[in-house]
Amino acid sequence: MPSTAVGMRCGCVCVGGGGVFKLRAFMWVDAEFPAKRAAPLSPAAASASTKFFEVIKYWCVCVFGCLRETDRTLVRVQDLTAEKADQLIWLRARVHTSRAKGKMCTLIRKCHLITVEMSLFCNCGALFELRLLTPSASITKESIVDVEAAVRKVEQKIESCSQQDVELHIERIFVISQAEARLPLQLEDAVRPDGDGEEEGRATVNQDTKLDNRVIDLRTTTSQAIFRLQSGVCQLFRDTLTQKGFVEIQTPKIISAASEGGANVFTVSYFKTSAYLAQSPQLYKQMCICADFDKVFCVGPVFRAEDSNTHRHLTEFVGLDIEMAFNYHYHEVIDSITDTMVQIFKGLRDNFQTEIQTVNKQFPSEPFKFLEPTLRLEYTEAVAMLHEAGVEMGDEDDLSTPNEKLLGRLVKEKYDTDFYVLDKYPLAVRPFYTMPDPNNPKYSNSYDMFMRGEEILSGAQRIHDAQLLTDRATHHQIDLEKIKAYIDSFRYGAPPHGGGGIGLERVCMLYLGLHNVRQTSMFPRDPKRLTP
Amino acid sequence: MPSTAVGMRCGCVCVGGGGVFKLRAFMWVDAEFPAKRAAPLSPAAASASTKFFEVIKYWCVCVFGCLRETDRTLVRVQDLTAEKADQLIWLRARVHTSRAKGKMCTLIRKCHLITVEMSLFCNCGALFELRLLTPSASITKESIVDVEAAVRKVEQKIESCSQQDVELHIERIFVISQAEARLPLQLEDAVRPDGDGEEEGRATVNQDTKLDNRVIDLRTTTSQAIFRLQSGVCQLFRDTLTQKGFVEIQTPKIISAASEGGANVFTVSYFKTSAYLAQSPQLYKQMCICADFDKVFCVGPVFRAEDSNTHRHLTEFVGLDIEMAFNYHYHEVIDSITDTMVQIFKGLRDNFQTEIQTVNKQFPSEPFKFLEPTLRLEYTEAVAMLHEAGVEMGDEDDLSTPNEKLLGRLVKEKYDTDFYVLDKYPLAVRPFYTMPDPNNPKYSNSYDMFMRGEEILSGAQRIHDAQLLTDRATHHQIDLEKIKAYIDSFRYGAPPHGGGGIGLERVCMLYLGLHNVRQTSMFPRDPKRLTP
Repeated sequence: MPSTAVGMRCGCVCVGGGGVFKLRAFMWVDAEFPAKRAAPLSPAAASASTKFFEVIKYWCVCVFGCLRETDRTLVRVQDLTAEKADQLIWLRARVHTSRAKGKMCTLIRKCHLITVEMSLFCNCGALFELRLLTPSASITKESIVDVEAAVRKVEQKIESCSQQDVELHIERIFVISQAEARLPLQLEDAVRPDGDGEEEGRATVNQDTKLDNRVIDLRTTTSQAIFRLQSGVCQLFRDTLTQKGFVEIQTPKIISAASEGGANVFTVSYFKTSAYLAQSPQLYKQMCICADFDKVFCVGPVFRAEDSNTHRHLTEFVGLDIEMAFNYHYHEVIDSITDTMVQIFKGLRDNFQTEIQTVNKQFPSEPFKFLEPTLRLEYTEAVAMLHEAGVEMGDEDDLSTPNEKLLGRLVKEKYDTDFYVLDKYPLAVRPFYTMPDPNNPKYSNSYDMFMRGEEILSGAQRIHDAQLLTDRATHHQIDLEKIKAYIDSFRYGAPPHGGGGIGLERVCMLYLGLHNVRQTSMFPRDPKRLTP
Repeated sequence: MPSTAVGMRCGCVCVGGGGVFKLRAFMWVDAEFPAKRAAPLSPAAASASTKFFEVIKYWCVCVFGCLRETDRTLVRVQDLTAEKADQLIWLRARVHTSRAKGKMCTLIRKCHLITVEMSLFCNCGALFELRLLTPSASITKESIVDVEAAVRKVEQKIESCSQQDVELHIERIFVISQAEARLPLQLEDAVRPDGDGEEEGRATVNQDTKLDNRVIDLRTTTSQAIFRLQSGVCQLFRDTLTQKGFVEIQTPKIISAASEGGANVFTVSYFKTSAYLAQSPQLYKQMCICADFDKVFCVGPVFRAEDSNTHRHLTEFVGLDIEMAFNYHYHEVIDSITDTMVQIFKGLRDNFQTEIQTVNKQFPSEPFKFLEPTLRLEYTEAVAMLHEAGVEMGDEDDLSTPNEKLLGRLVKEKYDTDFYVLDKYPLAVRPFYTMPDPNNPKYSNSYDMFMRGEEILSGAQRIHDAQLLTDRATHHQIDLEKIKAYIDSFRYGAPPHGGGGIGLERVCMLYLGLHNVRQTSMFPRDPKRLTP
């Protein structure tokens, strides 16, 4: 049971593996401390416990000889609530901050004491440098430690932690992995809202420094929340579609011919020839439809060799792709996609509030709004709204990025939604394989979807007749020889079909109201960034 | 209701979108047939139904003007059971085979009749060649048709179909998409077991022809079953891991440095510099562990520029990757992975019997056997078993492919399992980042997993100490400059961790007892194949 001796109280705040969970832990140290902790296992007894030994020897030798249990249960930080009060528990955690209370007592110094004590047993077969055990060693921030501690209820909520009702009184602490003393960035700086604490001279960390040191930046509560939510988006996407009878497919990324005419494509050396990286899985999705898979989806990397250095372009991103045969009208496809998006939005709203709130602390934004059923506007309506707002543009002009954003604001004002579909784009601004609108040859059966005024999906009914496809490709002056395989796919019976591709990073960025797609790409790639 | 007139009976067997479902359909034709079918909509009434019109004009004009309903419900082939007997239904299906019964009556000729009749209404705004409506047109095999038909119970089971208790008596039939008359391969040939019907001169289709015409080959019941099962493997993999608290991550495929020393890596032109295609997501998985994600998985393409033209090598395949921090022993990792595999095997056994049986019809194999808990052998035990079987090899030699297969047979005989783990590989045959065995420096904390005697996973405890990693890389004569970023990832506190990568196509191939990984890759890539 926990020591009740009165001595120096050392505070350290630990972050658990769960990332967004935090609690406060203390260690009480009295004069007898070194003596009390000096009764470890003999090396012989320890090596009998070979299952444990096998690993522990490679961790940190200061642990070896001190742990008697090999199957001890480690409690997770998020499970440390008032219900566990007065229990003695084991916890593995990363040291987030450490600060002194009382007269010059710091956690680091106390751990240092333990380390010195442990060093008595450090010559039992250690294979690597015992730098952790030198007298100058200390428990640095970001080190991983095992602690044995008593859970204690507190009277005043601990505002700085996620676990506000309890604190830990540490009995023993062992270093599992020691971090280098100099960190390339401080986590508390990396999560500071822009402008916050500027007067006190507190730093924030710029994006390139964060990305250069991503392994540390990903430990911040903000990053942990973003990527756990991203994992949720993928799962909700797939679960919804599987429920709807879609089949997951795997499409090749190395392809023999550039699918969309050869612009913006990366070239790969492929043995004695050259190949390309797929700019989308579209041809393969369509082949699956022609092969009777009926409804398919895929989740995978998409490559664009565009030299665009904007907040929303990446050279490699994750595509959430859908393609499906329909019965009578391509709006069946739109309905399937919008319902999938709505299920994602609902799932995030209902199951990821902790993550959303965590991100909001650093990057405040309005909650994401959506309608059921999803708003669908026709392109001509959108142009009319823009005209009314004073924008000068032709009926068949493509939307510029600023006009897309303006339209997003106009739609939000009028319909109170952050998500909508823009249907029936002018035929001239869409790729050759887009099905023309049979009622008005200037328009097409194609659509984009928008979140907070930015495009997240582009899609269309595709031409499934080889002759019409040939005619349209000729009209676009595309070399028919290069797309022969594509056109031939439709010669042996093809059902009417449509689909679209969603950018995962954009969905996460816009749902959370962030402003740079690099924040929602774990290891972003752009024309200037290839590392880490 | 269905015509009761006695006339010529034409048979056609349709395959539904579900791929593995098949049923028989007939059409009765009497002398009055043309007259009865000549009462379509007027063009004016038809164009009022614009929602339908919009699409249908681009399908097949012979349909236009004949369908009164736009929201008619299409029944799926698999739902056509005895319960639907005597109902009049609509079905969209692909014409699989068509054959004549009675005096010279073929389906094709009868459809031809309808087509001629439809051509009366073909001049209403058709945009493309009306080749379907010429007197010589016919419903070719592989065309997609809509039929209105009565479901009729049969007295004798129809052995050649999946829907054995009912047949369809077609009232009306419309061509949705006409296939070209000459198919590059016949589906019935493509599903014929090797050697079957050889005496009668029946053909089988060789693998290259199948792969060259994949869009048709994927329509075979065998391919449909394989890839629906593959979709199931991915879902079971992810669901099991999500349940275990794993987080899905997305890792980049374009990387700045070749991760494993530069051999067998594809080079990409990246703007003004060069980059590489990732040979595995391992570095990124490990970085996520160092960034406190604790347990992660990813599903994505993996690229190997190996000039290996074997039955089990691809240059691009799908990796099911796992990485996790563990508490006390790397066997925690093995246990997580083997349990995941067992959940996959159980899920396939319980939910994919139709698919398994379908594949077995063409490629017979024994049911896949596995134990709970999974059998784990140590490398030294395996070598002893091989020695006993007369194989000459050193204790620390790597296993050759024939020896792996032999070992698989020996293990099957002795333990009656098709799945097992081989643990504690010789350190010398594993990559530099593999954690040595602390008890015996000749071995390592690493493992492979096998299905039916072939490797499907390679994994290990990874070295998480920067200094030990540096020592091991130096021992392997690896240029430290090139792996600096990798080593630096472990400098800021890294928990002990391990993982592994599973080849999706191999798992599917070996579970189903197939003999070439190209059968379980939808669009395989090897040194000689880049298309389709």
